[in-house]
Amino acid sequence: MRYASYLTPAGQPTWGLEVDGQLFDLGPSGVNLSPSLQSAIVDGLLTKTPESDGAPVQQVEGTRFLPLLSAPGKVICIGVNYRSHREETGRADVGKPTVFARFSDTLAAHGADLPIPRESDMYDYEGEVALVVGAPADHVRPEDAFKVVAGYAAFNDFSARDWQRHTGQWTPGKNFPLSGAFGPYFMTASEVGDVTELVVETRVNGEVRQRAAVSDLIFDIPAILEYVTAFTPLSPGDVIVTGTPGGVGLFMEPPTFLAPGDVVEVEVGKLGTLRNVLVA
Amino acid sequence: MRYASYLTPAGQPTWGLEVDGQLFDLGPSGVNLSPSLQSAIVDGLLTKTPESDGAPVQQVEGTRFLPLLSAPGKVICIGVNYRSHREETGRADVGKPTVFARFSDTLAAHGADLPIPRESDMYDYEGEVALVVGAPADHVRPEDAFKVVAGYAAFNDFSARDWQRHTGQWTPGKNFPLSGAFGPYFMTASEVGDVTELVVETRVNGEVRQRAAVSDLIFDIPAILEYVTAFTPLSPGDVIVTGTPGGVGLFMEPPTFLAPGDVVEVEVGKLGTLRNVLVA
Repeated sequence: MRYASYLTPAGQPTWGLEVDGQLFDLGPSGVNLSPSLQSAIVDGLLTKTPESDGAPVQQVEGTRFLPLLSAPGKVICIGVNYRSHREETGRADVGKPTVFARFSDTLAAHGADLPIPRESDMYDYEGEVALVVGAPADHVRPEDAFKVVAGYAAFNDFSARDWQRHTGQWTPGKNFPLSGAFGPYFMTASEVGDVTELVVETRVNGEVRQRAAVSDLIFDIPAILEYVTAFTPLSPGDVIVTGTPGGVGLFMEPPTFLAPGDVVEVEVGKLGTLRNVLVA
Repeated sequence: MRYASYLTPAGQPTWGLEVDGQLFDLGPSGVNLSPSLQSAIVDGLLTKTPESDGAPVQQVEGTRFLPLLSAPGKVICIGVNYRSHREETGRADVGKPTVFARFSDTLAAHGADLPIPRESDMYDYEGEVALVVGAPADHVRPEDAFKVVAGYAAFNDFSARDWQRHTGQWTPGKNFPLSGAFGPYFMTASEVGDVTELVVETRVNGEVRQRAAVSDLIFDIPAILEYVTAFTPLSPGDVIVTGTPGGVGLFMEPPTFLAPGDVVEVEVGKLGTLRNVLVA
């Protein structure tokens, strides 16, 4: 099933189940299964399809979405994790995943107009697949990795390349406000099935810039979870953003960065299309 | 004034005011000024000396401390920020502060036995001065920087050098559980006075390994706050760890890492001495 966080027509934050372009309100303004999508995941309520009979319904069309999760404890990003992107960066093959952190207050909604930070002249997209942790995860063995994954969503890891490259540490370039677009839908792992078959495609103003299957990841999801949980324990609701394919604006010839009015879409197969318009 | 987070003799978590080796309980088990030191800072309750009349008192001696703050929204660390440390690392001068993030679940208490991660053969200390944010801080100008600082404390940014160097991003080496020792005392900025006069000294088994004054910082506190708040807004209770002086174990000849039984102390003048014993 697919789930979203959104506003009711009255402007109340809620979350619900999406079926065929309709949203069934499972939040406090609806059948009150749980206060938020985050709490529903934390409490393991989405392992079976929730009862949505009697839930207020609204059309996806015209709905204002919210960031899929409002306050994950950790948002962990994996860098240079597709061969096509590693090659364009000119980075050497490394034996371990590249890991950096995003503050959870950087998350942004599907459909939102997103500001290009006035401090950056090199604002860029990175279409990715994010996984949401569904169970406490510490020193996870690769063969157990999928047991701790609740589900998946599209993510756009917007990056201020100038700030990312001020020093060797990328943190500043990866943490501007509203730079982590996340949504529109969370799909449970069981509904996704074989995650390696998902294809992530990023388009700018309709032009395809990035395209790769999750099967192309250098460090696959079990390897990521094994490595990350060896140094930091994860909790339900934490997020890992798994990496971006080749095709970012930084490595186009000439380098091409985002400008006001640009429409960026990250489509991840049946997870849906995360769409944002950039504004000054 | 100096404040601490600690356990009462009955084992209840609380916080309080330290005067001459005595702790006055200002938490729910005492005069109930605020549930925690973190909430007292967030609510701006420490801008004047709180009333401690009638508070239960216990001796510092024998008290079990807690991490100074339990759950800061952001723990931001500044790397290679003392000339003596930059020189030993062989890194080039860079024009911007080096910034990385610590998850707040890595914080550890003064006095606690701290594990050397079994995954690391290169566990190292980094004595530092941490500042705690006291007011919302966004695009702070250097001349206003000290208006958003609530106070200071000693910090030991324990680092797994092998994991720090797996890739270019340091996050894994800086986020093992219980690797961010923080305390024993929070001292208000007004009580500290001129922070640049504070001297941080790190000792291992009594041997002085690091020693520098805050005035030796490459990027001083106003410069740090200007840079950091240009990309991410800070809130009361957030923490910035300002950097470590030369003298880490990694750059000793030969490199010398922490071993079980080692006693590491980070003394920051009148802020007090943060002491931890390493265990396997």
